[in-house]
Amino acid sequence: MFQHTIAAISTALQDGAISIIRLSGDEAISIVQSIFSKNILNAKSHTIHYGFILDDNKQPVDEVLVSIFRAPKTYTREDIVEINCHGGTFITRKILSIVLSHGALLAKPGEFTQRAFYHGRIDLSQAEAVQDMIEASNDTAANMAIRGIRGSIKKLLQPLIDDLMEIIANIEVNIDYPEYDDVAQLTTHDLLPKTNEWLTKIDTILNRVQTGQLLKKGIDTVIIGKPNVGKSSLLNALLEEDKAIVTDIAGTTRDIVEGQIHIGSIQLNLIDTAGIRDAKDKIEQIGIEKSQEKLKQAKLVLLVFDGSKPLDEEDKKLLELTNDKMRLIIYNKEDLSQNTDKEGIWISAQNNDIHSLIEALENMYQNDLLKEEPLLSNERQIGLLNQAKQDMIRAKEAMENFIEPDLIEIDIQMAHDHLKEILGEVHREDLLDTLFSKFCLGK
Amino acid sequence: MFQHTIAAISTALQDGAISIIRLSGDEAISIVQSIFSKNILNAKSHTIHYGFILDDNKQPVDEVLVSIFRAPKTYTREDIVEINCHGGTFITRKILSIVLSHGALLAKPGEFTQRAFYHGRIDLSQAEAVQDMIEASNDTAANMAIRGIRGSIKKLLQPLIDDLMEIIANIEVNIDYPEYDDVAQLTTHDLLPKTNEWLTKIDTILNRVQTGQLLKKGIDTVIIGKPNVGKSSLLNALLEEDKAIVTDIAGTTRDIVEGQIHIGSIQLNLIDTAGIRDAKDKIEQIGIEKSQEKLKQAKLVLLVFDGSKPLDEEDKKLLELTNDKMRLIIYNKEDLSQNTDKEGIWISAQNNDIHSLIEALENMYQNDLLKEEPLLSNERQIGLLNQAKQDMIRAKEAMENFIEPDLIEIDIQMAHDHLKEILGEVHREDLLDTLFSKFCLGK
Repeated sequence: MFQHTIAAISTALQDGAISIIRLSGDEAISIVQSIFSKNILNAKSHTIHYGFILDDNKQPVDEVLVSIFRAPKTYTREDIVEINCHGGTFITRKILSIVLSHGALLAKPGEFTQRAFYHGRIDLSQAEAVQDMIEASNDTAANMAIRGIRGSIKKLLQPLIDDLMEIIANIEVNIDYPEYDDVAQLTTHDLLPKTNEWLTKIDTILNRVQTGQLLKKGIDTVIIGKPNVGKSSLLNALLEEDKAIVTDIAGTTRDIVEGQIHIGSIQLNLIDTAGIRDAKDKIEQIGIEKSQEKLKQAKLVLLVFDGSKPLDEEDKKLLELTNDKMRLIIYNKEDLSQNTDKEGIWISAQNNDIHSLIEALENMYQNDLLKEEPLLSNERQIGLLNQAKQDMIRAKEAMENFIEPDLIEIDIQMAHDHLKEILGEVHREDLLDTLFSKFCLGK
Repeated sequence: MFQHTIAAISTALQDGAISIIRLSGDEAISIVQSIFSKNILNAKSHTIHYGFILDDNKQPVDEVLVSIFRAPKTYTREDIVEINCHGGTFITRKILSIVLSHGALLAKPGEFTQRAFYHGRIDLSQAEAVQDMIEASNDTAANMAIRGIRGSIKKLLQPLIDDLMEIIANIEVNIDYPEYDDVAQLTTHDLLPKTNEWLTKIDTILNRVQTGQLLKKGIDTVIIGKPNVGKSSLLNALLEEDKAIVTDIAGTTRDIVEGQIHIGSIQLNLIDTAGIRDAKDKIEQIGIEKSQEKLKQAKLVLLVFDGSKPLDEEDKKLLELTNDKMRLIIYNKEDLSQNTDKEGIWISAQNNDIHSLIEALENMYQNDLLKEEPLLSNERQIGLLNQAKQDMIRAKEAMENFIEPDLIEIDIQMAHDHLKEILGEVHREDLLDTLFSKFCLGK
C-alpha cells in the first residue's frame, strides 16, 4: 500500500540536546546505511549503533546513534530507523535533507501513525489518542489518552457494535425463516427491548461526554463577586495549591498560559486573571456589567461572598445572574465570621485555607473520574456516537409503527457503520487525510 | 566522583512527536526499572525495550521505548537510560517528575557532557564542540564542530605542547648536567631557535582565528550603494541563490532571522534588510548618512554601483567611506553596460546573474576552508592561545637577555599550562562549572 520510505524530524524543532530523525518503510535501513559509517544491514531489531553520518564525500557530518527496528514489531509495522543526532535545528535539518536526498520522502504530519493504522496495528481511536497524549495539558487528559492508546474506546464500543449485529442477524433470519407470524410480534418480542437497552447504554456514554471534554481541556472558570470579598486572595490561594509538575522542576520554563491552575486531576482555565494578578485592585473594581460579559465564556463560576456580612442586593443580583450556570457558592473570610451556618463552601482565602473548595471541585467530577470506562472527549467520535443514536431512534420509531423489517434494518446498519467509523473500520479516505493532517510532524 | 544518578529532558521543550528523558549514573537502570512495565535489569547494552511507564499505583502513564546503554561505552561512561515518550510537554515533564521522585537528581545544563569530560571520554575542546554543534547555524560552523568533536583541537595543539615539554626538558637537563658552559651558549644554540619556531606555529593558528569566528557565526554584511543601483534586486538574487536546507523542506518553518543567507559554505548576516524586502523603495532612499551608521556593525561591505553609468561624486564618497573595510566592489546592470572593463565584480542582479559575486565570496575564505587544520573560533580557547603566546614572548625576551634558565622555565611552564587548559588537562573547577552552565539542558 505504501511504496515510499518516509522520513521526518520527530522531536520539536528548536535547539535542544538531542533530535530524532525517523524513517519508516522498506528502504529505511538501506537509506541510512548509505550515509552511515557502520554496517547496519544485518543489525538485529531494537538495537542501537554508534557512528557518524557521512556526506557524499564520505566526510563526517555528525556523531549519531542509529536505532534499528525491524518489521513487524514496530510503530508502523514497517522497518523503522531513528537517527539521534545533536539537537541543533541546523544540523537536524541538514541530516534530514541528506536522508531525503538519498531516497526518502518527507513524511506528512501524522503519516507514521497513519501507516500504523492502515497496517492494522492500531484502530482510529487509538491513533487519535496518540495526538491527544501529545496535546494533553493535565493529568486527566494524559490519563484519558493513555487509556485510548491502549484501546479503551474499542473495548467500550465493541459490545454496542455486537448488539447491533445481533439485532440485524435477528431481522435477517426472520426475513428468511420467519419465527414470528407478523412484524408486530417480532418487534414486540425481540427488537424493541433490545433497541431500548441499547439506547440506554449509549446514553450512559453520552452523558459522560461533557465531563470528558471539560476535564480534557480544563474548565473555563470565572471568579465573580462584589469588590473586596477576596477574589484575588482566592486566586493566590489556588495558585499556591497548584500541584502542576511544571512548577516543581527547576530549569523548565512554565510556558502554560497564565491562569491555568491544576487542582488534583482538575485543570481550571481561569478567565481574565491577568488583571487580578497584575493589579490587585483591578478585579475588585469590576462590577456586575463586566461579570455578565465574562460569564458568557465560563463553564464554571466560583461565586464569592463575604461570609462575615449578610448578603446585600448586589450579592443577590449575582446569585440570580449565575442561576443557570454550573457554580460553586463560596463564603470567604470564614475566620472573621460569627455565623458560618449558611449552606455553601466556607473558606479563608487570606490564610490559604481553601480545602473545602478543593474538595467540592474534586467531588464534582469524582464519579466520572473513578469509573473504569473511558470518558469520550474527541469531537469526531462524539459526533458519530450521536449519529448512531439518532439512527437507532429512527429505527425504534419504525419498530413502534411496525414498519417492514428490511426497512428498519437500513437504520440499524447505519448505526452499526457509524460506530465502526469511530474505530476506522469503516472510513472515507479524504476524511482520514484531514484527520491525520492535524497531527504532529514526525508522529 | 559522581555519586548521584542524574536525569533531564534531552529534547527541545515544545510539543513534538517524541521526547527523550535521559538518565546517567549507577542507578539509572534500577530507577527506570522501578517505573517500567518490562524487566530491563539484565538487558544488554545498546538495546531498546517497548513498554509502559507506570505510576505509583502501577497504572500506565505513557507508552514508551526504553534504551539501555551500559558503562563504559556510553556518552558519559556511566550507565545511561533513555526514555522515548510521547512528545507533549505535559507528559514529558510528568515522566521526568516520576523519574526524579524515584531517586534521580535533575541534571544541571551540560552535566552529561561534563561527566563525559571528567571520565576522560572527551577533552574540554571536544565538550565545547558539542555545544558548538547544537548552536551551529551554517555548514561551516557544523563542519568545524564535528571536527572538534572528533578531537581536531587536541591534534592541532599536542605538537605545540610537546615542543614546550622538550624545551623545558632541555633546560632542566642543562641545569642538572650542563652541556653548555654558559646561559648565552645554551640560549643561542638550543632555546631561541626552538622558541622562534614555536611562535611561528602559534601565529599561523592565530592568524586564521578571525576567519574561524566569521565563518562560524556568519559574516555581518551590509549592502551599500546610491539609490537605484539595484540593491534590492541583488538581495533578491542572493535569496534566490540561498542553498540553506531550511527552504528546501516543506513543513519546516524557517525560523532563522530574516537576512541570514547561506551561499555555499558561507553565511551572510545581512544588516538592515527588513526595509529592503518589505518596501522595495525604502532602501533606494537610504543616503550616505544612513550608510555610515550601518557600516559600523559590518564585517563585510557589498558596495554596489550602476555599471551602465560612470561613477559620480556620490559613488566616490562611498568608495572612500568603505576604504578601511573588507569589501567587494560590485558593478550591477552588466547587461545594460557598454564598457565592462572596470576592475570589480560584474553582475546583473535583475537577471539573477550573480555568479561572479558568489565566486568572489567563496574565494575570500577558500584557502582557510580547504585546509586540513581546524579553524579555531571558541573565545575561551583563543584567549588561552593568546596567553600562551604572550608567555612565550616573555620567555623569548628573557632568553635574549640571557636570564637564568630556571627563571625562563617559569614562563614556558605557564605557556604549557595555558595550552593544556584548552584541553581541560589543567583546569579550575569554578571556571569549568561556568563553562558547562552555558550548555543545553539534557546534554
